[in-house]
Amino acid sequence: MDFWFRCCVCSAQTPFGLRETKCACGGTLLVEYDLERAARDMTKAALRARPASMWRYAELLPVSNPEFIVSLGEGWTPLLRLDAAERALPLGKLWVKREEQNPTGSFKARGMSVALSVAREHGVRKVAVNSNGNAASALAAYAARAGMEAYAFLPKDCPWMIAEECVHYGARTTLVDGFIHDAGKIILDGKAEQGWHHVGTLREPGRAEGKKTMGLELAEQLGWKLPDVIVYPTGGGSGIIGMWSAFRQLRELGWIDGKLPRIVAVQETGCAPIVRAMSGRSGPEAAVDSTPTGMRVPNPPDGQLLVRILRETGGTAVEVSADDIRSAQTVMGKLGVSSSPEGAATWAGLAVLLDRGWIGPDEEVVLFNTSHAMKYWPKDGRSLPEVRSYEDWKKIQP
Amino acid sequence: MDFWFRCCVCSAQTPFGLRETKCACGGTLLVEYDLERAARDMTKAALRARPASMWRYAELLPVSNPEFIVSLGEGWTPLLRLDAAERALPLGKLWVKREEQNPTGSFKARGMSVALSVAREHGVRKVAVNSNGNAASALAAYAARAGMEAYAFLPKDCPWMIAEECVHYGARTTLVDGFIHDAGKIILDGKAEQGWHHVGTLREPGRAEGKKTMGLELAEQLGWKLPDVIVYPTGGGSGIIGMWSAFRQLRELGWIDGKLPRIVAVQETGCAPIVRAMSGRSGPEAAVDSTPTGMRVPNPPDGQLLVRILRETGGTAVEVSADDIRSAQTVMGKLGVSSSPEGAATWAGLAVLLDRGWIGPDEEVVLFNTSHAMKYWPKDGRSLPEVRSYEDWKKIQP
Ligand SMILES: Cc1ncc(COP(=O)(O)O)c(C=O)c1O
Ligand SMILES: Cc1ncc(COP(=O)(O)O)c(C=O)c1O
Ligand SMILES: [Zn+2]
Ligand SMILES: [Zn+2]
Repeated sequence: MDFWFRCCVCSAQTPFGLRETKCACGGTLLVEYDLERAARDMTKAALRARPASMWRYAELLPVSNPEFIVSLGEGWTPLLRLDAAERALPLGKLWVKREEQNPTGSFKARGMSVALSVAREHGVRKVAVNSNGNAASALAAYAARAGMEAYAFLPKDCPWMIAEECVHYGARTTLVDGFIHDAGKIILDGKAEQGWHHVGTLREPGRAEGKKTMGLELAEQLGWKLPDVIVYPTGGGSGIIGMWSAFRQLRELGWIDGKLPRIVAVQETGCAPIVRAMSGRSGPEAAVDSTPTGMRVPNPPDGQLLVRILRETGGTAVEVSADDIRSAQTVMGKLGVSSSPEGAATWAGLAVLLDRGWIGPDEEVVLFNTSHAMKYWPKDGRSLPEVRSYEDWKKIQP
Repeated sequence: MDFWFRCCVCSAQTPFGLRETKCACGGTLLVEYDLERAARDMTKAALRARPASMWRYAELLPVSNPEFIVSLGEGWTPLLRLDAAERALPLGKLWVKREEQNPTGSFKARGMSVALSVAREHGVRKVAVNSNGNAASALAAYAARAGMEAYAFLPKDCPWMIAEECVHYGARTTLVDGFIHDAGKIILDGKAEQGWHHVGTLREPGRAEGKKTMGLELAEQLGWKLPDVIVYPTGGGSGIIGMWSAFRQLRELGWIDGKLPRIVAVQETGCAPIVRAMSGRSGPEAAVDSTPTGMRVPNPPDGQLLVRILRETGGTAVEVSADDIRSAQTVMGKLGVSSSPEGAATWAGLAVLLDRGWIGPDEEVVLFNTSHAMKYWPKDGRSLPEVRSYEDWKKIQP
């Protein structure tokens, strides 16, 4: 095997497998690769000629036989320079990684593409996930593509359109009266009887590995130079864990050097367990009072590792209010970007960091817009003016 | 100038400019390029190293100074092989071009990226469009990016979410009691007084040129070999006109040879002017009775050119019912693809063509999924089961 598990706490090495990525010691198991071997075929020059897909990094993904890859056209999303905004802000360069341009309209496509490829390679037929939404619709689409049965369990207040998406892709979709961990309990309780393979956050190795490609792409798209700061909307945290793994592997390959980017986790006030943990108050969020977005994960499966990553990279965690997020959505929309609440939270988080002087005037910052704005619109849309003619229209102008 | 207009009817050549693409003779003006000069820098090898954006073909787009390019990360969308479906159908290869992965969730991003780049190069500040939806939200986003004021006029029954998108990007959005041409009349009536640059279909040269990149990408993604058949959901027709221009330019460059793909226009029963025109009954659709999608254009600005293209390539036009489209959406969803009604119409159209034996058993077919499924969902979404526990869930299983 060219890849295996290594515990990020006790460093024990174990064979790769389709299992929970928890070590006996409680640490998270990360996937390690034979990097020397990977670098034989996957050179920087070879990469330039590879397709615009995250599977360009196949040597760093845990699938042995490419025949098992389940792909819908994910990854290699645009990294857009926000030049107009940049000029108005006290920083160097500002980018947004447009993750909403992935197949199911969110970055979750990456994780599910790898998770279901690994599952397929291991003979799985039935998959289940608990999710705040986007991971479920991605699971549904990739399961459809792989010809597997999908079961999605979502908090009942999750965005209605994402639940519709799950149904569109043919998943058995159920709403749960509770939070994402309550939905997860249903899978844990039913797993054995139903024969479900559980693809919840950190329940298997594929999802974090898939998200690693965001970090790999960022490096390649910036010419193998990483930005100073990454601002990321954080829920379960597999995005951050994945990108951090990417950067470590790139450093080991000798493709990047110097310091890693300072990673910033953004969460919403009312459910910010990582912000609390960074200031020493660990444990699950007791009184959750935030909007139902991908950031609402009261009890992240490996908060400790997240804290370690933020500290190790010199990063931080910030919380922003629901109002800040709404205003940020308006701002990002007016930059031409379809920004989900999570993506907009990174803009709001950036404002906090700039306010605090936490970002230097020459620094380069990347925001992650992890999903499409439209997935979150309430059913009671605004009412728009209606006319029959230009004369009509003129009358209603302010 | 390296590009100019040529009338597709009388062949008269005129200077390129920001104007309606109508010749005095009534023919449509297409943009021609100094292909020899274009091919000097834009070689096949050079292309391989260019970014995953439709602007890789800048030499074949009518913008002189790249500084004016208005880009949000459009184009180079995945071409996905539908292998599972392919095996069950009497054809050779089946692909879907995933145009919903463009910035504003539809292929309209391409046309608006070029249209607003041209407009910016010509000093425009205010833009207006009549649209069934997707063109308006794309206009809104690209105008935001370019710092221009945008005015969108949409039929009042257009998908509510697309109207919301326009607002998200900051456009002045108005619903019109009528069809797309009624919305167009408002712009024509107000143009002079309001100083609007009209970016409606064939009102300016950028949109058709932008859509040309779908044809260029298709050729490059298939290794400079075109498919036998292209199935395209047709409204105003600029997608087909654009792709046909692409293929002619590639042939002139000597990059492709042999016959061009047979282009098939798909429309919905109740508004199928191109289907009628192909069987000799021209003129606008008298009694429109179809759903409000991008295909509902009762009076396409240049139906004659469309008929000529379909005939010249050996293509055809087919109509499919609203029910066929709904069923096709279910089928495509279960292949893992977020299919808009227009994209699903191509699947329904394919079924008709296969039924008629119009496609040979070894032929290669490309469908265009022009927009995201979710943009079209009605507000009264389905109701999903809700549970508290695994035991609850088991009780409601069939
Ligand atoms: C749009 C969006 N952004 C961010 C997140 C948080 O992701 P992570 O689990 O990587 O922290 C989610 C998770 O559901 C999401 O859907
Ligand atoms: C999703 C979608 N598909 C197809 C069309 C038709 O495009 P064309 O004008 O190229 O015929 C439209 C136009 O509005 C559209 O929005
Ligand atoms: Zn351990
Ligand atoms: Zn003419």
